Amino acid sequence: MIRRSPKASDPAARLKHERVREYLEDLLDTLAPDAPLPSERELAQHLGVARMTVRQAMDRMVRTGQIYRVQGSGSFRARDRLDQPMVLTSFSEDMRARGFLPGAKTINALVEPAFAGVAKRLGIPEGSPVCRLERLRTADGEPMAVERSFVNSELAPGLEDMELEDRSLYALLRERYGLDLHVAEQSVQATLCQGVDAQLLGVADGAPALQFERTSTEAQGRAVEHVRSIYRGDRYRLRMTLAHQ
Amino acid sequence: MIRRSPKASDPAARLKHERVREYLEDLLDTLAPDAPLPSERELAQHLGVARMTVRQAMDRMVRTGQIYRVQGSGSFRARDRLDQPMVLTSFSEDMRARGFLPGAKTINALVEPAFAGVAKRLGIPEGSPVCRLERLRTADGEPMAVERSFVNSELAPGLEDMELEDRSLYALLRERYGLDLHVAEQSVQATLCQGVDAQLLGVADGAPALQFERTSTEAQGRAVEHVRSIYRGDRYRLRMTLAHQ
Repeated sequence: MIRRSPKASDPAARLKHERVREYLEDLLDTLAPDAPLPSERELAQHLGVARMTVRQAMDRMVRTGQIYRVQGSGSFRARDRLDQPMVLTSFSEDMRARGFLPGAKTINALVEPAFAGVAKRLGIPEGSPVCRLERLRTADGEPMAVERSFVNSELAPGLEDMELEDRSLYALLRERYGLDLHVAEQSVQATLCQGVDAQLLGVADGAPALQFERTSTEAQGRAVEHVRSIYRGDRYRLRMTLAHQ
Repeated sequence: MIRRSPKASDPAARLKHERVREYLEDLLDTLAPDAPLPSERELAQHLGVARMTVRQAMDRMVRTGQIYRVQGSGSFRARDRLDQPMVLTSFSEDMRARGFLPGAKTINALVEPAFAGVAKRLGIPEGSPVCRLERLRTADGEPMAVERSFVNSELAPGLEDMELEDRSLYALLRERYGLDLHVAEQSVQATLCQGVDAQLLGVADGAPALQFERTSTEAQGRAVEHVRSIYRGDRYRLRMTLAHQ
């Protein structure tokens, strides 16, 4: 799936494409969510380039989730992405704090022998029982993320039989098992929504996504949960303040 | 570019695909960088699935940069991603601290009237002169990121004529203009390498990427630089410790 820019090796043509892209990115920065963009024709005229050049740039921004098109109405700025919290909180608590109704649709909930990687993260022997919990997370009914949790079954026996539909896993771990998640190590990387994930999330195959890996530990230092999650790239971002050291 | 999983709507088939993916993701978690994976045939036998199922899962992991293939030799775990620093530091300083030789290839360096979004970020009137600096950043010669900086020209006059090849912009701002970058507001989102960016970075069109937007301020509170960067998704990640609040 190689899409080659026409004459990308020509510095002048490249600069032209660059300028169009930058103009559009900058324009989005000044627009409100769901605000309409000027038409391709208007943009091409304003920038003094071919309409196809504008269309190409806009196609790319549709793929990255920066703009969306409505048949017969034109192009619009995407909604603001939600800031992924930089503290240890559950999806449900976070969504409620933002005024959304959190939801969870259970795809799988079963006990299985831990694979080597999960076992290592949870600090248990390979093959120990873990509860694999796979859930589609929604906000006001809209799919936002696919969560694949692995919980040490010794710490939370019977978790796989609990009612987890539209419930906070962390609240359940706290209330039912006395497990207060205290601290977590998290990594975040860019990935793609593919296959089943894209279908569950209702986005195009190959759409950008954030992949979170997180191991959470309770107050006494026991690792309770290792979770691998795919968050929609068009709905989430991280924000941080950086200080010079 | 819709790739549909065969029988993805069939829960048993979906679970099978899930299990293969999870087995592979878990396996990668236990392997050293550049370590070989078992062959598709071996994996299919071990997991009791068709070889095509394994191949599909591996194709996806090639696209996300988790594994790479070498013609005639098989598949290998990708190298570890570098942890993007969570402090305000220059690319050059960061790379040197890791033992890499930092490089910068200037693509564009010119003064232009600030677009509205950049002007807003820099706290200057639209149309004020900014130095647009576009550079390909390398580590030991390997392309890592495309940086598009906008620097307030009033604070750094003549920056566009400076020698910036293989130099740290932040060091230059400090030494030449007395601008000590103090604090920055940064957002991070998932995006795709497309068009010119994919060519510059030497990755497939549509490969995952991290997009950073950062506005940096000097000690007296003046915004000096707004930068939009595309970092290769297969070479970078963020890591953080989350505490419960």
